Amino acid sequence: MSIDSRPAPATEPNSEITIIDVSPRDGLQNEKTPVSTDNKLTLINSLITAGIRRIEATSFVHPRLVPQMADAEAVAAALPRGHVSWIGLVLNERGLDRAIAAGLDEVNIVVVATDTFSRKNQGTSTHQGIELWTRLAARARSAGLRTTITIAAAFGCPFEGEVPITRVTELIARCVQAQPDELALADTIGVGVPRQVTELAGAAAAEAPGIPLRWHFHNTRNTGYANALTAAALGPCTLDASVGGIGGCPFAPAATGNIATEDLWYLLDRNGIDTGLDIHPLLDTAKWLDTVLGYRVPGQLARAGLFPAS
Amino acid sequence: MSIDSRPAPATEPNSEITIIDVSPRDGLQNEKTPVSTDNKLTLINSLITAGIRRIEATSFVHPRLVPQMADAEAVAAALPRGHVSWIGLVLNERGLDRAIAAGLDEVNIVVVATDTFSRKNQGTSTHQGIELWTRLAARARSAGLRTTITIAAAFGCPFEGEVPITRVTELIARCVQAQPDELALADTIGVGVPRQVTELAGAAAAEAPGIPLRWHFHNTRNTGYANALTAAALGPCTLDASVGGIGGCPFAPAATGNIATEDLWYLLDRNGIDTGLDIHPLLDTAKWLDTVLGYRVPGQLARAGLFPAS
Repeated sequence: MSIDSRPAPATEPNSEITIIDVSPRDGLQNEKTPVSTDNKLTLINSLITAGIRRIEATSFVHPRLVPQMADAEAVAAALPRGHVSWIGLVLNERGLDRAIAAGLDEVNIVVVATDTFSRKNQGTSTHQGIELWTRLAARARSAGLRTTITIAAAFGCPFEGEVPITRVTELIARCVQAQPDELALADTIGVGVPRQVTELAGAAAAEAPGIPLRWHFHNTRNTGYANALTAAALGPCTLDASVGGIGGCPFAPAATGNIATEDLWYLLDRNGIDTGLDIHPLLDTAKWLDTVLGYRVPGQLARAGLFPAS
Repeated sequence: MSIDSRPAPATEPNSEITIIDVSPRDGLQNEKTPVSTDNKLTLINSLITAGIRRIEATSFVHPRLVPQMADAEAVAAALPRGHVSWIGLVLNERGLDRAIAAGLDEVNIVVVATDTFSRKNQGTSTHQGIELWTRLAARARSAGLRTTITIAAAFGCPFEGEVPITRVTELIARCVQAQPDELALADTIGVGVPRQVTELAGAAAAEAPGIPLRWHFHNTRNTGYANALTAAALGPCTLDASVGGIGGCPFAPAATGNIATEDLWYLLDRNGIDTGLDIHPLLDTAKWLDTVLGYRVPGQLARAGLFPAS
């Protein structure tokens, strides 16, 4: 099956900035008490109601390592089809087998920018990770799934510190040889700043021309929203966020939540950037997460209220 | 005494972006249990150690209305002189009398952009507030104090909603007739976005050419840091922040903390903008505030840690 004949996301986004909600995956993978499958599906249905059309629903990783995602098949089996492009995170061959069997529309495959973090996160060096990504991309494509290559820790590594732009540039060049449908650059530990967004966007434009760009920001040091707005101002792109701002990486010390979908909506909407989303279900869901998770989620708009009030 | 012969801040800032720490005033004015004068002075001394050279130390308001600032004279009497320009917030004639008697270097005088909020905050209409500011500015200047006019709720009002840019533009034009040393535009309730920063900076450039611009952002809806970076990118300016991100307005519902001084430092520093500050005392102070205030302050860098670690 050629690239062109593979299915596009079921509903095209309304604007040049698309928000992917990753809360069912990145948002919940770090919860000490795994969230029930029923609650995950309630969460997912709320996202659909809000107009989210790409959702990272789960990850196909070993349940011993990430028990929070042990119900990946059960979640996938219950996903309503037709209006949303469903994404699964995949780290290895077995994960891809499961994602294909589960009938997802897209796989998000991760290469970590530094060797130390790569070994801790997925047991391979970065370059072994690229070789794996290349094999997985070909198999996913053959199975009719769209592919995203995510370069994790592209803004900095919790173990090695600074990640030179030259390193990320080289990784982009090598990864795009496997023809991803999308290139994602991830600030996995929330250390990035807008200067890096601009630099990395330049690297992506040079090494991956024509490949849609996706950004994954955490707000660990209060830079995530400035990063997201910078990315949106640079041109059409896709932004990851999680409703409530929940999330974190199980293998990165002190990693905290993603940027919150509802707070990102506010920033973009008030800045004149339409995302096609309905804010009210997102606010309701953020408040509901407070009770499901048993703590106050990091997103702020649900507490502070819309402005102007409506 | 002419404008030119009045004293400049004791130490000129090292860069084009200056940070004023407002934590002793805006940061503490909303605490249910007033912080002791001793702890305020400990806080202030930490800010000096970090290199802050303009500090909003207190407000001279009626102790019945804001009991947290009832010790304004005691705080002022203990301030070390010579390295820092000390600012007091003033809302009326009596407040100015007290600020002058206390020997402060600067007064920050507030005009609220909407009538409803103005009446709740200081008992006058906006235009009565401008008349008051005009009288206070003349008196402060005669007494040798530098003056800042702050236009509060310039980005939106908790009672009236949207504040048109034309309204703020008109207020700027009227306020600068009294020759402030500085014009501050305040997002008092944390609703602003970068688009407004750019629009308001344009209004200031048109109506108040040559008058240094100062910005006051709250992070209530996670837009404060993007706003601050936008302001810094537009040119030389001064940014208010509070260590730990503490703060809020007693008369604005759901107002929350200022942008955190240490998180602002991180955003600017990693983005290549030098503020001349030493981050370590700020991180220590943010952690100390957790214990003094009895809750986790909103600033995130002190918890997440510097990057790269140092």
